[in-house]
Parts: sequence; structure tokens; C-alpha cells
Amino acid sequence: MRYSFKNDYSEGGHPRIIELLASLTDEQQEGYGNDHYSTKAKNLIKEKIDDFEAEVHFVSGGTQANLIVIAAALRPYESVIAAETGHIHVHETGSIEATGHKINTVATDNGKLSVQAIQKVLEDHNDVPHMVVPKLVYISNGTELGTIYKKTELQELYEFCISKELFLFLDGARLGSALASSENDLTLQDLAKHTDVFYIGGTKNGALLGEAIVITHPQLKEILPFHIKQRGGMLAKGSVLGIQFLGLFENNYFIELAKHANAMSKILIDALQKNEFPFLIAPVTNQLFPILPNHMIEDLLKEYDFHLWKKINASHTAIRLVTSWKTPENKTRELANKISKYTP
Amino acid sequence: MRYSFKNDYSEGGHPRIIELLASLTDEQQEGYGNDHYSTKAKNLIKEKIDDFEAEVHFVSGGTQANLIVIAAALRPYESVIAAETGHIHVHETGSIEATGHKINTVATDNGKLSVQAIQKVLEDHNDVPHMVVPKLVYISNGTELGTIYKKTELQELYEFCISKELFLFLDGARLGSALASSENDLTLQDLAKHTDVFYIGGTKNGALLGEAIVITHPQLKEILPFHIKQRGGMLAKGSVLGIQFLGLFENNYFIELAKHANAMSKILIDALQKNEFPFLIAPVTNQLFPILPNHMIEDLLKEYDFHLWKKINASHTAIRLVTSWKTPENKTRELANKISKYTP
Amino acid sequence: MRYSFKNDYSEGGHPRIIELLASLTDEQQEGYGNDHYSTKAKNLIKEKIDDFEAEVHFVSGGTQANLIVIAAALRPYESVIAAETGHIHVHETGSIEATGHKINTVATDNGKLSVQAIQKVLEDHNDVPHMVVPKLVYISNGTELGTIYKKTELQELYEFCISKELFLFLDGARLGSALASSENDLTLQDLAKHTDVFYIGGTKNGALLGEAIVITHPQLKEILPFHIKQRGGMLAKGSVLGIQFLGLFENNYFIELAKHANAMSKILIDALQKNEFPFLIAPVTNQLFPILPNHMIEDLLKEYDFHLWKKINASHTAIRLVTSWKTPENKTRELANKISKYTP
Amino acid sequence: MRYSFKNDYSEGGHPRIIELLASLTDEQQEGYGNDHYSTKAKNLIKEKIDDFEAEVHFVSGGTQANLIVIAAALRPYESVIAAETGHIHVHETGSIEATGHKINTVATDNGKLSVQAIQKVLEDHNDVPHMVVPKLVYISNGTELGTIYKKTELQELYEFCISKELFLFLDGARLGSALASSENDLTLQDLAKHTDVFYIGGTKNGALLGEAIVITHPQLKEILPFHIKQRGGMLAKGSVLGIQFLGLFENNYFIELAKHANAMSKILIDALQKNEFPFLIAPVTNQLFPILPNHMIEDLLKEYDFHLWKKINASHTAIRLVTSWKTPENKTRELANKISKYTP
Repeated sequence: MRYSFKNDYSEGGHPRIIELLASLTDEQQEGYGNDHYSTKAKNLIKEKIDDFEAEVHFVSGGTQANLIVIAAALRPYESVIAAETGHIHVHETGSIEATGHKINTVATDNGKLSVQAIQKVLEDHNDVPHMVVPKLVYISNGTELGTIYKKTELQELYEFCISKELFLFLDGARLGSALASSENDLTLQDLAKHTDVFYIGGTKNGALLGEAIVITHPQLKEILPFHIKQRGGMLAKGSVLGIQFLGLFENNYFIELAKHANAMSKILIDALQKNEFPFLIAPVTNQLFPILPNHMIEDLLKEYDFHLWKKINASHTAIRLVTSWKTPENKTRELANKISKYTP
Repeated sequence: MRYSFKNDYSEGGHPRIIELLASLTDEQQEGYGNDHYSTKAKNLIKEKIDDFEAEVHFVSGGTQANLIVIAAALRPYESVIAAETGHIHVHETGSIEATGHKINTVATDNGKLSVQAIQKVLEDHNDVPHMVVPKLVYISNGTELGTIYKKTELQELYEFCISKELFLFLDGARLGSALASSENDLTLQDLAKHTDVFYIGGTKNGALLGEAIVITHPQLKEILPFHIKQRGGMLAKGSVLGIQFLGLFENNYFIELAKHANAMSKILIDALQKNEFPFLIAPVTNQLFPILPNHMIEDLLKEYDFHLWKKINASHTAIRLVTSWKTPENKTRELANKISKYTP
Repeated sequence: MRYSFKNDYSEGGHPRIIELLASLTDEQQEGYGNDHYSTKAKNLIKEKIDDFEAEVHFVSGGTQANLIVIAAALRPYESVIAAETGHIHVHETGSIEATGHKINTVATDNGKLSVQAIQKVLEDHNDVPHMVVPKLVYISNGTELGTIYKKTELQELYEFCISKELFLFLDGARLGSALASSENDLTLQDLAKHTDVFYIGGTKNGALLGEAIVITHPQLKEILPFHIKQRGGMLAKGSVLGIQFLGLFENNYFIELAKHANAMSKILIDALQKNEFPFLIAPVTNQLFPILPNHMIEDLLKEYDFHLWKKINASHTAIRLVTSWKTPENKTRELANKISKYTP
Repeated sequence: MRYSFKNDYSEGGHPRIIELLASLTDEQQEGYGNDHYSTKAKNLIKEKIDDFEAEVHFVSGGTQANLIVIAAALRPYESVIAAETGHIHVHETGSIEATGHKINTVATDNGKLSVQAIQKVLEDHNDVPHMVVPKLVYISNGTELGTIYKKTELQELYEFCISKELFLFLDGARLGSALASSENDLTLQDLAKHTDVFYIGGTKNGALLGEAIVITHPQLKEILPFHIKQRGGMLAKGSVLGIQFLGLFENNYFIELAKHANAMSKILIDALQKNEFPFLIAPVTNQLFPILPNHMIEDLLKEYDFHLWKKINASHTAIRLVTSWKTPENKTRELANKISKYTP
């Protein structure tokens, strides 16, 4: 079987996560997230973000987190601003629209939103009441293109959002890899301080499933459980989610696992850069988009699985390579060696 | 800590389930339910229901299963017929209405729908186009009151539904306990044959989470994955759900675990009946609703946790006791002994 | 052709309304309700309710008014409390649910809600966050059964709603007839003072179409135009609605036309009472529900059109007779004479 | 007061329309569109389109027509393809999204969709089931930019739609002006033949309000009344809409009124072209987008009202001039004279 660099959810959970899940078998816990483990995990996260007024809720996956937060934050005539490449716009089967809301998209080079781009959307929506009212800014870190936000960028965005009474919501499905990036200067505290709500992705960073939604905006705090339940996101055995986040955070696994993914990614980046392969966008997390000759791609596909991302020209295509907390070094070096035998 | 007879989702997963989940750690699988385990589990279920044309999909929980199936089956102006006690009407925070659909409710004694009751709803909705068009009948087995459908009842319902072009949808969050009941004469094959879509509850019967939706109606088959994705029900690591159903069905654990729950329930029923405690409704599954004197309830609550269900009169209240696949015999006998010291 | 007592929207508009509409042909007005007539009509209504802080908006019909106000007022997990006979529950094809909201219904004798009934719904919805949160009380005046609210009743309801942070919304599709009832002690000022939002029905009281939504609750004021536009309720030629309300209110036609309808109704009531026909419910507005022998109904149907409302027993049926601003006295007396030839 | 060339809904209704509406006052008609006039108008339209199997329904306005047709045609995971300039995308406050559906937009030069553009959207939506499924193509004729479809273009679009199982829906809010254009080669019969559903705009062409939805696709025919009622689009006095379309079609007013609007437009076009003013897009209907020097715009705004459409550069701006069935020739010539005094 071909080894897969297709995504970061090909493998199951970290052994410590499994161990913790096993421990649930012989004890009784309250349902619906009111168990001791969820409470402990929530407190641990509040400690990490240094905000004990925040609310934390666990849900199963990213699409669920996105649609719940957005449906909770918006009035029917209010809309979301997102990058054209944003996951909610492209890859979630209209889940946001299914809750009744329009997404106002912005073309970007790098998957990141800027104050200017948001300002432009606001200006374009001045024909009251014939247009939706943009009210929430959706960003992701790392983005769909593997790029990350710097601290000053996030601060600027948040200040602008506050000045315009917009919610700032950060999708952190790949937050681990972003925070573990050598280019990163953001902390979990910064995220809590410079967004209204964000989530910490477990699924793509060692958990079997689970995203932890962290809410700091007072208006969204109390009401989220109703939305989680209504949208089918509240597990009867809520401890299954809580205990996994306990596992990820009690020994800093959250960052360590992501660091491993990034380290594996670095091995591939080095090999690609050494032979001067161009990238669609400079890689800084566990997602790389190198542009390769088609014949090379054909060769590699015999032994490895990965996504073809974008046709560049008749002879070259950008592919996506993704590493994970579980990607073994030997497989990675093997691929790096293969790469070093080709030229752009 | 008090031992809880509050529900059947207090404990984690069966050891075999955990073992299987652990096995996912060291291998790569396709995402979104296209993994080998999900395929194997789907095939096993198709074998059990003896219908290889059926479609099977796994989702995280019951509310999710309910809202996805109903939103997939109905046009905007079509409605669901359900018992007034139905979970979708009472305990799911308006999740069905949030997808745009009205629930037409029917008062029942026992949580079960009859042909007559459905007929009445249809007759009451004749003012076209000023009224919704009832199009799907929602039943649960076991019901919210712990009652079950007999084979002839289900057949009659389904024949009627076919004659009226209604979908018949069976919520099987507690299907294990229903099928394992000594009163039961239904098989999984019968369910597949006499409904359009039903689901098999894993969460309340040994899994950590997971419900298996089984679709036999051709119109609903192909489109369900879109709805699952759109409503946030598609896990990136779909194998997490599939492998648990593999665990439940490869060694008949699904029925065996439910039999244990029912056997524990029987111990309590026997003790209650011996002392002639009345029941709100005759118990046949893992949910009992005995009517007890308030002072007795107060005493029991010191050592056990359970729901107060319904005030009967100034001195008596119906409580709900629920046993699970994990309820230990010693704890159950201990409670049975306590009960035997009281009189109605 | 049979003369119809079937409803109060069989005829077109009052001549003064037509005259005003004709006057729009030769002049230019701003679109979307920003025309001079709409402004004038809004100011006139604010004068009548003695509240210049109120907001007034015109929409085409009752279903539209209901769904717009309710969708504007509620968060996704919040619900409406309504009488089981309420128009939104029975006769609007699930329009409220189509905006995502559950209706919590209350059985009533007379179509009216009481504090006790609302209190009961609140008590039944205490399982947070597994249940919807009732947040808006929907009443109609006159009700579906032709009954009306007394001033003390409305005051009590509103005080209770305030104490529970519920919105009170009054559907006034038949408000004219209610206010013109000999039993009525409410004024337009009272309605503005003792509800958060209500509407004044034009369609059933002399206009060709149009309902005037009056909002006094600060939270709902600014946002309504967005909802009106989003739900398709904003006419390009908004003056068409505004000028009709100008017509209804500038010479007190609104009350005078309703008085005529009620006077015609009184002629029928007197004839029915004289011969001791029972009523389903005591008539006080332009809707009567007399219980008649079936043979008499058959005879009457040869010359008049009306609704069969409810089968009472094998030999008797309640029918609905409705009079309007246009019902001629001679036709009414003719029917009254017919009635006087029968006995219960 | 400044004379307005701002839009085509500044004036009321054509005298014949008013006359007909007046005639409703003294007679009784069935409610909800089941009156004689609506039936007669529907038959007349079926005659004009030469399709007696078609269904015709009247609603109040364009946003309503759009959202009702689209919500009726689509399953929750299905989407609409529209031009980026499409009215449903830009100017209807998210009304389509509020019914749960995504709009896939296409950038265009002229507001018109091509087979290639639609093909591209389909190709971009191949990641099943993670993406919405485009299912309906929304076009308008005339478009937002005043352009029109030629017969061969519409035929090609429709053939392509059929081959891809897409619905083709044509928004005809300004259909009169399009059909009356000197460039037009389409007939009402062509529209019925080469779309699945379209509507005929009354509001902007002599009526006070009203759009006639014409459905030829069998799947949409029977269900539309439920959607119309559910979305608040069904008037109690349905005759008010029906009789206006009777007025527009019984003496060919529909085309004659539009011809007048276009003739007035032609006067302005001639004046602009004589002095060689450029246009944003070549004008063929009652909407013109000339590019004028800013000082000239300032001058004109002193006497006329119109929209500033788009800033072209520091010194020039495109404006929108719209003529209507009611625009007087003298006012138009007066403006033409003013224009002739300026140079580009």
C-alpha cells in the first residue's frame, strides 16, 4: 500500500488519548459534557489561555464548530466575511448557507484576510437594507494554504473588528501546526485576547475527534450550548471529547505533536528547496504546495498518495503534501530522497 | 459517590471497542468514512439486515441522525408526524424546526404511533396549500417510555405509510434494548423491510459514540452524504465510527450487551412487582417508570441517582430507572434489596 | 351566484382607497417605502397610538407580517408560544418553522392565551439546553374564533411577558373588527402600550392589501427593514401600501368600516339568538360560529356560501359566517329572515 | 422637485390597471388567487406563451418570486449559479441564503451567463459530497446592466442545462423592456420553451405590483402554491394581482408600455451618442450607463435624480439612467438637450 501524505487525519489517536478513552469504561460520568474530565479539560484550557472568564465547549469536528459558532453569532440578515479559499466557502457543502447566512468572499493570494480587504467588503455593503450586513470575520490559522497569521496581523484585524462591531472568529482546525511553526509568534493567550471566539483542533493533531471552541465575547458565552444541541453537536458521552483534550493539554502534547508534524514537513521542504522546486506559496506549517513536473508526480504517485492541488501549466502541477503527528521519519526521508533525484 | 441509574450513557465504551479504536493509531485510513473498517462494518450490517441494496452511514449521535434524515427526506412545506413524547419534539432544542420543518404531534398513552393517529393527522391537513403536508412518520423503538413495537404493528404502519406515500423513519437510539426485550418479535431484517430508513444506536449500547443510519428507500440513498456533510455530521476520521460498529456486530455484542442491560432491568422489575409497586407503563426494556412514595424516593436518592419523571399525586412520583450494558449485577441487586424494604 | 359570508376578503378595496391609488399614477415617489405617503401614514398611525418613538412598517399580508416579526425577534433556539388554534400554527403552511423556529402550542377554549397557560409552557421547558427557550408570545385580536382581549387581560399578559423577558406580539389581521366590537375596551394606544409589536390589518378592513406593523420594543425597531427585504416583503412601489393606510386612518375609516362589518354581524346574531340557536363561542366581532341543524345548512348553502367549521354531532354542525366592511344590509337581512324560519 | 430617472418604479399604475382594480370593489371573488380574474389572466398568459400545460402564479415582487422559485426547486445541498452582478446575490439581503442555499457566482462583463461560465462552476464542484451541487441557473432578462439575451444564447443555455440536469430560471422583473428592445429576437413563447421557469415583471411595467411566475418544468408545477403560501407570498385578495396582469395582457399593454420606456431611453441614447459619450455597456433597454464628466453630473443632479453607478477615474463616473412606461417625452427631450450641451 502506498504511504499517504494526503492529509493529517489518516491515522487514529495518540496512545495517551486511547489510554484515557479506555479509562472511561469502568466509571460513571454525567452526560452531555457535564462530566469531570470535560470540566478539568476546560479549566486546563482556560489556564493555558489565561482567561478564566472564557467559556470552552467541545464538539466533534470543524464543520460543526464553524456552523454552530456562525449560526449562534449572526442575526438572519447578517453575513460572514471569509477568504475565497476559506473552508466554509468551498468544502463544507453549503453548511453556513444552510443555517441561513451569506458568505461574502474576498480573493487573496495567501488565504489570509487583511483589514483592507474587510474594509472593502464593508464599503460594498452600504445599500441598507437591500444588502446583508457583514458581522463576523472568519479566518483560519493555519489557513487552507498552510500560511499563518503573525501577532501584529491578528491584533490589527481584531482592533479593526472591534471598531466596526464585527465578531472575529478563528478556525483552528490546524492550530497546532500553526502555533508550532518556526515562523509563529502567537500564543494561545494571544488568540484568546485577539479574537472573540476560536477553536483548537484536536482531530488533526492526535485526537480521534474533537475541537475545543473557546469563547471570550460575552454575548456568545451563555447561548452556545443551545446551538450545539440544536445542530446535533452535543454528544451524550461528552467525556469522550473532554478527556481527549485533557490528554492533549496535560503534558503539552498539543504542541509537541504539532512540532513533529512540522519537523517532518521541514525534511520535505529542505529536499524540495535544495533542488530549487518552486512552491505555490512559501511553506511554514505541515502543508506544502510544491510545483512539480507532471512526470515526477506520476512517478511519486506510484509509491505515495497525495492531492493534486492546481494545474500550473501544461507540464507542471502544484501538489499538496501534508504531514501529521504520526508521520514516521523514515517514510519522510524516503520521500525526500526520491524528491532529490528530480529537478524542477 | 452515588451509583447512577439515570441513563444508559454514563459509562464509556466496551473494552473490545476501545481495543479496536486503539488499533487505528498505527495505520493509515482514508478519511470521511471511506476507510476499510467503515466499509466492512457497512457490509456486516447489510448482511445482518439481509439487504445488500441498502445504504449505511455512520454519524455521531441521535439528534444528528434525526435532523439529517428528516432534512434529507422533506421538501420545505412537508412535515413530520411524531408522538407528543417523541425525542425530536421535546428534547432536541428545536433541531427539526431549525432545518425548516414542522412536527405534527399526536398524543399517545404509550409513546407509540398507530395507523389511526396518523390517519387523523392526515385528515386534519386537508386545507391545501394553507397547511403543511405531512410526509414522514417518526417513531422510536424503544420509545421514550421504554415501550416497543410488535412486528404486526410495524408492518401495519409501514403498509399504511406506503399507501399514503409517507416515509417511515425509526429512531433506534435504544434499538438494542428493544430487540433484546423478551417481548420483542422484530429482527433487524424486519426493520429494514418495514421502514424506509432507521438507525442503530451505538452510543447507548457499548460504543463511545455512533449511530448507524440504514436507508432502504431509493430516493434517500444517494443524497445522504451531502446532508451529513452539510449538517456537520461527517467525521474526518470516519473510521472511528465504522470500527465501533464492526466491534458491536462482529461478535453479536450488539444484542448481548443489550441483553445484559435488560437482565439488570429485570432484577429491578421483579423486586418492584413483588412488592406491587405500580408502573407508569409496563416495562419491557432497560427503562422503568415505577411509581414510588416520595419518602422512598428521598431515601433512594441518598445512594442512587435517577430522574424524577412525573408527579403522580401529593405523595407519589414516577421515577425513571435506566440500566445499561455496564450496570453491574451487584449494584442492581443492592438496589433491588433496598426496594424490597418498601411498600407502595 | 350565491352571496358569500365565507370571509372578509371577498371584495376589493374601499372607493377612497382606489381613489388614492389612482393618484399615484401621475407623480413620482421614492421607492421601497421611502415615499411621502408612507411617511405620512406612519406619522398618522404614530399619532393614533400616541407614541412617536414607535416604528411603523407596511407589508403585504398577515403570513408575511407574522413570519417577519417572529424571525426578527428570535434567536435560532428560541420559540413562539401560541394557541393551538393560532393562525401561524394551523393555516400558514409551516411558515414559522421555515424560518427555523418551533411553535409551542397551548390548548384553549376560546382562542385566547392566559398567563397560566404561558406559565405552564415555561415550566415545561426547564431542561436547559435540551429544549427550546420560549421567547415570544403570539396572540391575535380578534382571535381565530372571533373572540377579543379585554384591556385587563392584555395588561396582565404584557406584565407577565415583561417579567419573564418574553416579547408580546399581537396579530391584528382582524384588529378593526375587534376594536369596533361592542365588548371592546381597548384602544390603539393601549395596544402600543401593552405589546412589543402588533399589526393593524388592512386587507380584511377596506384595503386591497396591506398590514401595518407597529413596533415599540427598542430591540426590534432598527432591524425590521432588513428582515422585510430578506423575506420578500418590501415592495418597490411601497407607496401602494402606505397610501392605503393613509386612506384608512385619515378619516377614521379604519373603525367605521369595521363597525359596519360588526353591525351586519349583529343582524345575524340577533336572528340566531331570537330562535335560540347555540354558538360554538359567544360572538363579539364579525365572525360567528352558530351551531345549526344539517338540513338547515343544506338549505342555506343553496343561496349562500360559508365555511363548515366543525361537526358537532350526527345532526348538527357549527358553521362560520363572516361579514365585512362591504356586506350589504339587504343581503344580511335576507339571510337573517331565512334563519328566522328555522329552529335549532 | 427634480425629475427622476432613478428607476422604473417611481410612478404608480397605468390608468387601465387602476380602473380594473376599482372594479373589484363591488363584487365578490374567491380568495387566494382562485378568483375569476386570476384564472382569466393565467389563461391569457398561457395563450401568449402557447403552452396550456404551463402553470402561472402571481406574487407581489421580484425578491419574493426569486426566493420562492429557488427554495422550491432545490434540495438543501443544492446551489444556484448566478452572475456576480445578479440581483439575488447583491441586492436582496441574503434572501436566497435565508432559505438555506448557496449562490455560486460568476464574474461577467455584461451581466449575462454563458455555457462556458456555467461549465466552469460545475467543474469546480467535483469534490462530492464536500461541496454543494449546482442545480439551478439564475439569469435575468434584461440583466442588471440592461443587456439582453438573444434567442440562440437562451437556446444554448437551456440545452446545456438540460444536458446537465440543471433548472434554468429567468428573472423577468424587466422582461417588458427586454422584449421590446430593438435588439430583441425572443418571444414569450421562446421563454416558455427555453426555460424551466421564468417570471413576467408587472411592477416595473405599468402595474402597481405583481410578477407572474410561469412554470413549465413538471417537477415544479404542483408544489409552488405551498411555497408561495409558506413564504408569505399568497395574498388573501389574489384578484388584486391577477386583474393587473389581465390589464397588461388583454390589450398588449405589456409590450406597448415597455416600448414607450425604450423609446424614451432611445432619445437619451441618441443625445449621448451624438456627443460621443462612452457607455459602460452598450444600451439596448430602458437602462443606460453613460460615462460622464463629474462636473456634468453635478450640473445634471441639480435638475434630475439618478444613480451614480461606478467611479471610472478621477474625473469621470458612470451613472444609471432609467426610463419607464410613464416617463414623459418632454422631460426626456429636456434632459437630452441638456446632455447635448456637454462633451465627454
